[in-house]
Amino acid sequence: MNTPPIDLRSDTVTRPTPAMLEAMFHARVGDDVYEEDPTVQALEAETAARFGLEAGLFCPSGTMTNQIAIKAHTVPMSEVICEQTSHIYLWEVGGIAFHSGASVALLTGDRGRLTAPQVEAAIRPENVHYPITRLISLENTHNRGGGSCYTLPELEALAEVARRHRLPLHLDGARVFNALVATGQDGREYGRLFDTISVCLSKGMGAPVGSVLLGSRAFIQQTKRIRKVMGGGMRQAGYLAAAGLYALEHNVERLADDHRRARKLADLLAARPYVAEVLPADTNLVIFRLRDSQPAEAFLAYLEQQGIKASSFGPQLIRFVTHLDVDDAMLARVEKALVALD
Amino acid sequence: MNTPPIDLRSDTVTRPTPAMLEAMFHARVGDDVYEEDPTVQALEAETAARFGLEAGLFCPSGTMTNQIAIKAHTVPMSEVICEQTSHIYLWEVGGIAFHSGASVALLTGDRGRLTAPQVEAAIRPENVHYPITRLISLENTHNRGGGSCYTLPELEALAEVARRHRLPLHLDGARVFNALVATGQDGREYGRLFDTISVCLSKGMGAPVGSVLLGSRAFIQQTKRIRKVMGGGMRQAGYLAAAGLYALEHNVERLADDHRRARKLADLLAARPYVAEVLPADTNLVIFRLRDSQPAEAFLAYLEQQGIKASSFGPQLIRFVTHLDVDDAMLARVEKALVALD
Amino acid sequence: MNTPPIDLRSDTVTRPTPAMLEAMFHARVGDDVYEEDPTVQALEAETAARFGLEAGLFCPSGTMTNQIAIKAHTVPMSEVICEQTSHIYLWEVGGIAFHSGASVALLTGDRGRLTAPQVEAAIRPENVHYPITRLISLENTHNRGGGSCYTLPELEALAEVARRHRLPLHLDGARVFNALVATGQDGREYGRLFDTISVCLSKGMGAPVGSVLLGSRAFIQQTKRIRKVMGGGMRQAGYLAAAGLYALEHNVERLADDHRRARKLADLLAARPYVAEVLPADTNLVIFRLRDSQPAEAFLAYLEQQGIKASSFGPQLIRFVTHLDVDDAMLARVEKALVALD
Amino acid sequence: MNTPPIDLRSDTVTRPTPAMLEAMFHARVGDDVYEEDPTVQALEAETAARFGLEAGLFCPSGTMTNQIAIKAHTVPMSEVICEQTSHIYLWEVGGIAFHSGASVALLTGDRGRLTAPQVEAAIRPENVHYPITRLISLENTHNRGGGSCYTLPELEALAEVARRHRLPLHLDGARVFNALVATGQDGREYGRLFDTISVCLSKGMGAPVGSVLLGSRAFIQQTKRIRKVMGGGMRQAGYLAAAGLYALEHNVERLADDHRRARKLADLLAARPYVAEVLPADTNLVIFRLRDSQPAEAFLAYLEQQGIKASSFGPQLIRFVTHLDVDDAMLARVEKALVALD
Repeated sequence: MNTPPIDLRSDTVTRPTPAMLEAMFHARVGDDVYEEDPTVQALEAETAARFGLEAGLFCPSGTMTNQIAIKAHTVPMSEVICEQTSHIYLWEVGGIAFHSGASVALLTGDRGRLTAPQVEAAIRPENVHYPITRLISLENTHNRGGGSCYTLPELEALAEVARRHRLPLHLDGARVFNALVATGQDGREYGRLFDTISVCLSKGMGAPVGSVLLGSRAFIQQTKRIRKVMGGGMRQAGYLAAAGLYALEHNVERLADDHRRARKLADLLAARPYVAEVLPADTNLVIFRLRDSQPAEAFLAYLEQQGIKASSFGPQLIRFVTHLDVDDAMLARVEKALVALD
Repeated sequence: MNTPPIDLRSDTVTRPTPAMLEAMFHARVGDDVYEEDPTVQALEAETAARFGLEAGLFCPSGTMTNQIAIKAHTVPMSEVICEQTSHIYLWEVGGIAFHSGASVALLTGDRGRLTAPQVEAAIRPENVHYPITRLISLENTHNRGGGSCYTLPELEALAEVARRHRLPLHLDGARVFNALVATGQDGREYGRLFDTISVCLSKGMGAPVGSVLLGSRAFIQQTKRIRKVMGGGMRQAGYLAAAGLYALEHNVERLADDHRRARKLADLLAARPYVAEVLPADTNLVIFRLRDSQPAEAFLAYLEQQGIKASSFGPQLIRFVTHLDVDDAMLARVEKALVALD
Repeated sequence: MNTPPIDLRSDTVTRPTPAMLEAMFHARVGDDVYEEDPTVQALEAETAARFGLEAGLFCPSGTMTNQIAIKAHTVPMSEVICEQTSHIYLWEVGGIAFHSGASVALLTGDRGRLTAPQVEAAIRPENVHYPITRLISLENTHNRGGGSCYTLPELEALAEVARRHRLPLHLDGARVFNALVATGQDGREYGRLFDTISVCLSKGMGAPVGSVLLGSRAFIQQTKRIRKVMGGGMRQAGYLAAAGLYALEHNVERLADDHRRARKLADLLAARPYVAEVLPADTNLVIFRLRDSQPAEAFLAYLEQQGIKASSFGPQLIRFVTHLDVDDAMLARVEKALVALD
Repeated sequence: MNTPPIDLRSDTVTRPTPAMLEAMFHARVGDDVYEEDPTVQALEAETAARFGLEAGLFCPSGTMTNQIAIKAHTVPMSEVICEQTSHIYLWEVGGIAFHSGASVALLTGDRGRLTAPQVEAAIRPENVHYPITRLISLENTHNRGGGSCYTLPELEALAEVARRHRLPLHLDGARVFNALVATGQDGREYGRLFDTISVCLSKGMGAPVGSVLLGSRAFIQQTKRIRKVMGGGMRQAGYLAAAGLYALEHNVERLADDHRRARKLADLLAARPYVAEVLPADTNLVIFRLRDSQPAEAFLAYLEQQGIKASSFGPQLIRFVTHLDVDDAMLARVEKALVALD
């Protein structure tokens, strides 16, 4: 096949566009361990400004920004309240226990979204047998929930519970720009609600590497030691940061296209006889369940043969992800392949 | 009130009988850190024999025996499969994360009892994002499930899953003698199924202090270093061990009396207008839910006034525990107090 | 041999006297996890009073009291300043790293005793590459230093450094009563200097099991959760605590006899042709080095044959310990055996 | 001042040359978390080949490669033997304790270099009170020792001790190419001696970001999960890896120039009246001690004024580092500034 492969596995597979590469190539850099890389500093400041928070910390991955935040907010023998399918619990190698010695209170959300009363009921009372609740962590959009988004009132109610119990509220914003674009929310409203936000630049935003942890100036100052011990202190990291800055400027609004394509895929799938269920496609993730008559492995092999890559997401569950490197022509090819299987 | 108080809060409150005290008083002791305390060694050997396992390790608490077992079976970044209300997760201060840096896969059992298919589905596939499943832990009787017991076939099916996946199977046997007496099972059958068992002597068994961790000789040898680092290396511990030996000889069969009394309490409660629900009383724990019209705090205060202590176990949930220090006369007093509240 | 063996390996091997046993088995007890054991509470209060501190926590071992203190004073990525042969570093299974995730700054003292300038120079400056100094820990008497003691002015200078840098000062007082008796110091002076003290009751004091951690009321309250997670929450622990109370009343002053006997042993050893060096015997420990012509293993085997047990303490190093169960008649037998080897 | 500043603080400050930048931005990339980045894979393979080891793992920093190796070689409650001024202990934020829960046996080397007998004596005997020795770690060149190098026979003797005790031997090779170039050793000889090597590309090698951990295929496979939990899993990391590949090809031999310049600086410093001592300059680090009459802060301020940056390295200790961005013209300027201070 001469046509380029279509990679629907994840929005992490995007490669920089020539313009982004150009921006990287001309970055001014310095030794960021000495806090002397101007491009890293510009990215940290710009990302913080977008979310109305004071300061940022550039890290090589979203797992690192999340785990640093969890470490900084907790102590050993404390507990983190999060959804049972949240990325920080499910896909970060048990890092909450490993790095922080902290326990988890796992709640079951509506496609990953927790409610304020649910969270409040999970806060541990004082008792020598219990860990001490020290952190509430949300994920928006919620990956395992199919890119579901919170409304602002929902977030406000959750923030109110956190504030009342003097608990910090963290956001895993691996796809927070998708949430903002899909809902029309402004990132600066998040800064009022969350104490810390992990913002990923290497998913739909299209940068090759990097996430930024946001918080107050004092909090971010304290996290530098944690980034150092985890091995996240990089030297001339400005080349990577430049891609992030480019993405902030050019790749946010276009996420709406990914969302449109995801909805189209969802509609298409819902009409297939071999598909049992499709989660609502609120953003750029389409999670669907195959009927038992259509084995998932055979389905993925068929797509692969058609030059289409996708991910298994559980028994009979498949995930499609739209992103910068998936255009309408590709979508037409996917449609053809899906329909042909009817 | 001149009558003695009735303590239904827990079977941990039992005090040694004069005969048990006599046995303690005459114990031969030595420095157990040097492995020279003959009474500790006798208790370890005798408990192991009762469960068909090779060796035992005497520790100051069941939290320590459980946490040592978890530590020895796991490595950081691995995962423990257990029930979401199991003691090791819920009431040991987040020790799984704290001591072992291990994550938890929390399942929802039937009154705490897991099934083999449920456990098998929770074993993590190989994936760089996941912790590695390293331990399956059961609790029998299950405290939060109201003293529920597994049948032998259920345990065999679970052990078969563990064996097939080369995973160790641990039993939190805080009240394992209650399970044996209630079901007529033989402890030596457990030794075939479980790799390690934590046996508590200071609950219904009536000893003042101590639990024994059981396993293979090689496993127990390896746990001595963990007991040491946790501060469980005691010197002339034979005085405590003597009480455990006495309990093994004299206090097992009599657990049937506690069970009979618990059933009687359960029946009594089920007939009360202010009680919404009573969990089946399979052993010595009676968990019941008050109707919303009868606030739990007022109920406990009323009992306290009548010389009866009991525990809150959640919103509107109360737990009564029968044990060595609760006799039929006391039960009659409890009955009177409960009926008077109708 | 019909004569009783003489055990010079450690003062941990002492067995309770009949009077102490009597006190133990008349103890009033309760469930100490519910904070209802009056004898444990009396021991905690009495020990605290002896050292002029507010509160105490009874634990099954000195390793536990030390490690709880270290855990409570530090956070992961911080550092503990201590002597390179201190018990907390050398003989507690690497617990500082294991429980607390804390690093160690190891200093070389004069027979284990640190000086104020030495400690001050080891406090880490602010730097993202360094752990943060969070604790200074001393040991008095210092075991590996041959039972060496600090003078009060030395301790005051060290406390002044700690205070100036707002660092807590912990004392591993495994043999603190030996230090008090040997120097004529008053324990209440220690309460002014140290934030926390671990006091052992099962060494020269003769109790079978147990140590008490002392500190402010707020500090001790916070340590209860740590004791629980470590498995040190015991139920009717009053039987053990009663022995500690008896020891406080009856076994402190008599330590002077142990010290006299240790000095006698030291003099005797200094005069032996096969002994290369004897550390000053300030309290109840006698550490000496054999000449290379007298292999340590053969020496220990010879003593064993004479009914005398002693410990190897390093290449050609031997430790003799005097204690409650070593009297003058036994000392005469040791003398005879040592002289016979000339 | 119009002349460019001279940065002698560290070889980490180097910026990519235009040719290296060119190589970076023509890199073929992919998602390295999916193991699909061809440039990362080429760098890992090429670095491994240079050292005669099977496989490599690209990470964002040398702290991460070191800490991953330590984590993979040890278990909690074990111990690492290393020099007391080694980078892994001194400048990685106490990561040995934090990540691995492991203790340290700290030895005093000759300018950081340990001897085989010294290491062998530090291996812990079996004893329930001790951590278990699990790793020996060397550093070559040794930073704090002024860039000192081991001879091959010295390394062979150390490897022999490791092999005899079945202990893995790790090399912190932050500046291992400097050692190879200075001694004429072949990296492939290291592969026979060391189980794992951390190779840094962002110091004298001139790449902006990155280190490679080398080991057996099985070992490296196992470390991917650790890199993931630490947040070192990067997506299109090939841009960084390309710089590393370029450095391997073009920047190794030229380290000899840095060494020549360092020796010249050392000679110059040795002749200054205000310098008390200069460590032998075996590679590219020059550590020297100022006389007390010349305060270090004033000295650094003077240099700063002259457009020269250098690092304080302890009381009265200064470190100069030569590297890719320091040429002979700059050296002449440094000479002039140093002589002018006589």
